[in-house]
Amino acid sequence: MQIDYNSFQTAYRSPFGAVMPQTSVHFTLKVQASEPIQQVSFCVAHDGQWDAEVAQTMTGPGPLYTTTFTPTQSGLYFYYFEVQLTNDTVYYGCVDGGYGGPGMQYARRDQVQMYQLTTLAAKETLPQWYREGVAYQIFVDRFYNGNPDEHVNAPKPNSFLYGRMSDRPMYIRNAQQEILRWDFFGGNLRGIEAKIPYLKRLGVTIIYLTPIFQAASNHRYDTGDYYEIDPVLGDLSDFDHLVTALHRAGMRLILDGVFNHVGVESRYFNRSGHYDTVGAAQSRTSRYYNWFTFINYPTEYDSWWGIGDLPTVDKENQDYRDFIYDQPSSVIDYWTARGVDGWRLDVADELPDDFIAGIRRALDRYPDKVLIGEVWEDASHKLAYGQRRHYLEGGGLQAVMNYPLRRLIIHVLTGTMLPAEWWRELMTLKENYPATTFAYNFNNIGSHDTPRILTMLQDDVKRLRLAIGLLMTLPGVPCLYYGDEAKMAGGKDPDNRAFYPWNQADQALQHDVTAWVHWRQARPQLNTLAFAPFYLGDYAIGYVYWQADQPQLLVVLNVTTMEHVVTSAALQLSGLPTAVAAAVTTKLVGQTVKVNQLQLFEKFT
Amino acid sequence: MQIDYNSFQTAYRSPFGAVMPQTSVHFTLKVQASEPIQQVSFCVAHDGQWDAEVAQTMTGPGPLYTTTFTPTQSGLYFYYFEVQLTNDTVYYGCVDGGYGGPGMQYARRDQVQMYQLTTLAAKETLPQWYREGVAYQIFVDRFYNGNPDEHVNAPKPNSFLYGRMSDRPMYIRNAQQEILRWDFFGGNLRGIEAKIPYLKRLGVTIIYLTPIFQAASNHRYDTGDYYEIDPVLGDLSDFDHLVTALHRAGMRLILDGVFNHVGVESRYFNRSGHYDTVGAAQSRTSRYYNWFTFINYPTEYDSWWGIGDLPTVDKENQDYRDFIYDQPSSVIDYWTARGVDGWRLDVADELPDDFIAGIRRALDRYPDKVLIGEVWEDASHKLAYGQRRHYLEGGGLQAVMNYPLRRLIIHVLTGTMLPAEWWRELMTLKENYPATTFAYNFNNIGSHDTPRILTMLQDDVKRLRLAIGLLMTLPGVPCLYYGDEAKMAGGKDPDNRAFYPWNQADQALQHDVTAWVHWRQARPQLNTLAFAPFYLGDYAIGYVYWQADQPQLLVVLNVTTMEHVVTSAALQLSGLPTAVAAAVTTKLVGQTVKVNQLQLFEKFT
Repeated sequence: MQIDYNSFQTAYRSPFGAVMPQTSVHFTLKVQASEPIQQVSFCVAHDGQWDAEVAQTMTGPGPLYTTTFTPTQSGLYFYYFEVQLTNDTVYYGCVDGGYGGPGMQYARRDQVQMYQLTTLAAKETLPQWYREGVAYQIFVDRFYNGNPDEHVNAPKPNSFLYGRMSDRPMYIRNAQQEILRWDFFGGNLRGIEAKIPYLKRLGVTIIYLTPIFQAASNHRYDTGDYYEIDPVLGDLSDFDHLVTALHRAGMRLILDGVFNHVGVESRYFNRSGHYDTVGAAQSRTSRYYNWFTFINYPTEYDSWWGIGDLPTVDKENQDYRDFIYDQPSSVIDYWTARGVDGWRLDVADELPDDFIAGIRRALDRYPDKVLIGEVWEDASHKLAYGQRRHYLEGGGLQAVMNYPLRRLIIHVLTGTMLPAEWWRELMTLKENYPATTFAYNFNNIGSHDTPRILTMLQDDVKRLRLAIGLLMTLPGVPCLYYGDEAKMAGGKDPDNRAFYPWNQADQALQHDVTAWVHWRQARPQLNTLAFAPFYLGDYAIGYVYWQADQPQLLVVLNVTTMEHVVTSAALQLSGLPTAVAAAVTTKLVGQTVKVNQLQLFEKFT
Repeated sequence: MQIDYNSFQTAYRSPFGAVMPQTSVHFTLKVQASEPIQQVSFCVAHDGQWDAEVAQTMTGPGPLYTTTFTPTQSGLYFYYFEVQLTNDTVYYGCVDGGYGGPGMQYARRDQVQMYQLTTLAAKETLPQWYREGVAYQIFVDRFYNGNPDEHVNAPKPNSFLYGRMSDRPMYIRNAQQEILRWDFFGGNLRGIEAKIPYLKRLGVTIIYLTPIFQAASNHRYDTGDYYEIDPVLGDLSDFDHLVTALHRAGMRLILDGVFNHVGVESRYFNRSGHYDTVGAAQSRTSRYYNWFTFINYPTEYDSWWGIGDLPTVDKENQDYRDFIYDQPSSVIDYWTARGVDGWRLDVADELPDDFIAGIRRALDRYPDKVLIGEVWEDASHKLAYGQRRHYLEGGGLQAVMNYPLRRLIIHVLTGTMLPAEWWRELMTLKENYPATTFAYNFNNIGSHDTPRILTMLQDDVKRLRLAIGLLMTLPGVPCLYYGDEAKMAGGKDPDNRAFYPWNQADQALQHDVTAWVHWRQARPQLNTLAFAPFYLGDYAIGYVYWQADQPQLLVVLNVTTMEHVVTSAALQLSGLPTAVAAAVTTKLVGQTVKVNQLQLFEKFT
């Protein structure tokens, strides 16, 4: 028996991708069998409501069977197909791993993998500055010290400063791997301000800063006081100056909002009494006592991944919600009113959906703000702590840090993923994500939480150039990680957090990255176009942007070490409209696909 | 049977203490027995020549038996007594532990503990500036940063700087306790120069600096280059300025000479090739190859106490000897010619005697220099690596760091030693050491290698004041450890090496220490006087300085927590000449010995 289905093709599923409730979605299954087909059913359930699974009979006579399903709720629906023969039943679902596209037959109901149908609560709009921007992530301690004499602002008690800016970062730990002291290079807010001319030359328009509020560590994900700039970084005046200077330079600022947990030495938990307020660990009468969940007061408490330094806050606590976003001078309000243009929510998938929605409501009181979340996987169906997360379905996050795209870029450049696999994974993201998320996701090829891209690419600068090219030409808002353009290398934390080598930066690479950023900036409408990836046999990936069936940009990358001449047989264009596929075929057949070169064809029809 | 002897009393042994060869030393033993005494013998051997032990019959008739022994060689003689009865032989030696003074009877020859008779090769003279000085030891990184903006000079690659001067020092180690990075506060030579006014107010006249030559660590006992000032500390010009400024202020400079081993990353061993010369670890053709003893080239080699970071130099190597002291621009010459007034030899007891003598000869080419050694025990009979060390017998060290005196001061102040024990130990040092060593030893109550005195005294500042008083009134050249006067506390390394708390120094204590130093400076001839300790029952220690039987200074310290009124029965004055004992008795009987007070009586006859 032959069953054909491909969720990526509108001949089988229309419309493509995420939909709004009450949208009629048409499904077509092609079944060819040597014995009589009794019935073909479309089986669907809303996420988690497995007992309420519905089986709709699909209309024949065959080989095509069709039905229309109209989701009524936002969230995820999961579906598969059932083909009843006289003495047998065959199931059809997606391939293992949850990929969309063509699926496979299953012999048993309990083995079948289901396709995802994302249904949105609301369509998002994102501000133009964000949609058309190129971002640059700065780990503040490691970027630049703006003090003319390079002294470090207000070093913390019992902290260490690096002797030289070229020193290799390290954690100072005891034998139990606990951090004994924090280490600082002394990059600060004035340093960022001083480097605005550099950033402007580079062409970036959005600056995303890792946390800047008072904390004990150098990364500041252990917030000590949400209302204070960390004194090592500067003061409120330095912050205001920076915001003004960025805005004057046409740049926007995204801050890192770390609201899942606080530092054990924070004003709120205050284990050692460093702050003058009564913390939760100091007294049960503390205002903050109910923010935390104590198992054995005050020494045992819920903490992030069991790390005692990071007590988890109970996000259901209304006082905490008021504090973060639901009162006139909440944290979100205080800083957004001072000019912050967007927030990146740390461990967003561990925050309750309505907590994220509350932050979003607070942000929406200001024009043109953006809310991004940290999620490492396909964020459309992320389960965390047994909970499906709905932050992408409207009214929550507008984008996430696109680590899956980073993974695709690295794999394809290191030859550890076939072009067909690359295509299927990217198409699945396109199918599962809201269209705005896919188009305006916060893309990266490395961050403070990953090894640097150059290291991931085995220190091959040619590949790094290709990675930058992919980042700049794929859908989404590109975010560079500081120093990648200076040829910084480094494995996992802390090696990925070295100080920017201002005097040893690779100028040729800086020049090429600058050219890519400017290329991108010259095409602000790129992400408003239709987009689809394709592939060329097992030797190249490609993608095309089009408008009204007119290709606008075609990108091809040979992922092997040999040149290939494109044949029509090699072209796998199944996700493209017929006219676009035809134009791409005409353009590419007979072309030589070069090695180590991102080949671009613009407005070529 | 009753046998009486007391090496401390001239009635039994005369003259007291160390002697020159060819000096007739008279021994008297008092034996009272109920049975006939066949023979009384004085048994003596030169150190190590046990087969050549001589038994001289002592002349009776009894109860006093006398003999005269004339040592012919320098070095140590060891002696005991043998009393032959009709059917028995009784031996008499010192009490266990090698203390002089009264001894005890032994039943067997192989059990007897022998008395020591130190014989000198030459009498030492020491320069006046040293004899009359008060010293101050500075661990340079931790004293003061003389740069107006407090930047650290030339931080080493991959080193850490403390964030605040008040930070608690720590080692940055891995789980194997290996040091991963060195930590610096940034004290430097200009800092010392800037604090000369402070040191002058304090009254000290000799500055002893821990090593200042280029090295990898913060302590610099791992010399990298003997001809370079460590750049973290400054440069040659800073050094020259400091020497000039110290001399102009009437102060002298003692450097730390670390010649037993070098750093593994030194110019000489050069494991990692940091230096531009070919090091011993780099090639067997290195000039320095023969300085070291390789077991398995180049990875296994002799090192100090097995610490691979500190390869031991073969001090028998003539090229090394030339380098250190035996050529015109040797290390000793180079720095001494630049104004260094004395050297403290690190781990002196691990240096061959003739190596030390060579350094001394080099030093003696300059007027008024002094050579001090690091030895932790009674240095008169130190055995190290199976070798008796002769550095104190003339022509070698002129003094040693007096750690035994530190031990006596701490024990008596913490109530862990009885006055009689204190007296016996101090008298033993007086007996064993050359008179000039005892009078001009380099006394301390703490150093970079010990917990701080305040910590040893359980943070009791009253006791600290008494310890300072003892240090200033006992024989020898007092050496303060930087910051003890500022009330710095701290256990063993690195806690004893914190940065000087310039803004939090205890001013009352500084004032009192200053008063003590000035008291001492006002009595430059103190150490030229005769000296003996005594004790008062089990409640007080005392000592007296006299000249021509005239007491000049009498010191009494109650070591209990209760006042006592002195009785003649309590006074134990056996080491004192009759006239001095009488004067002390007259002065003290009926006096109240106060608690927590060093009672001084000057020129009271």
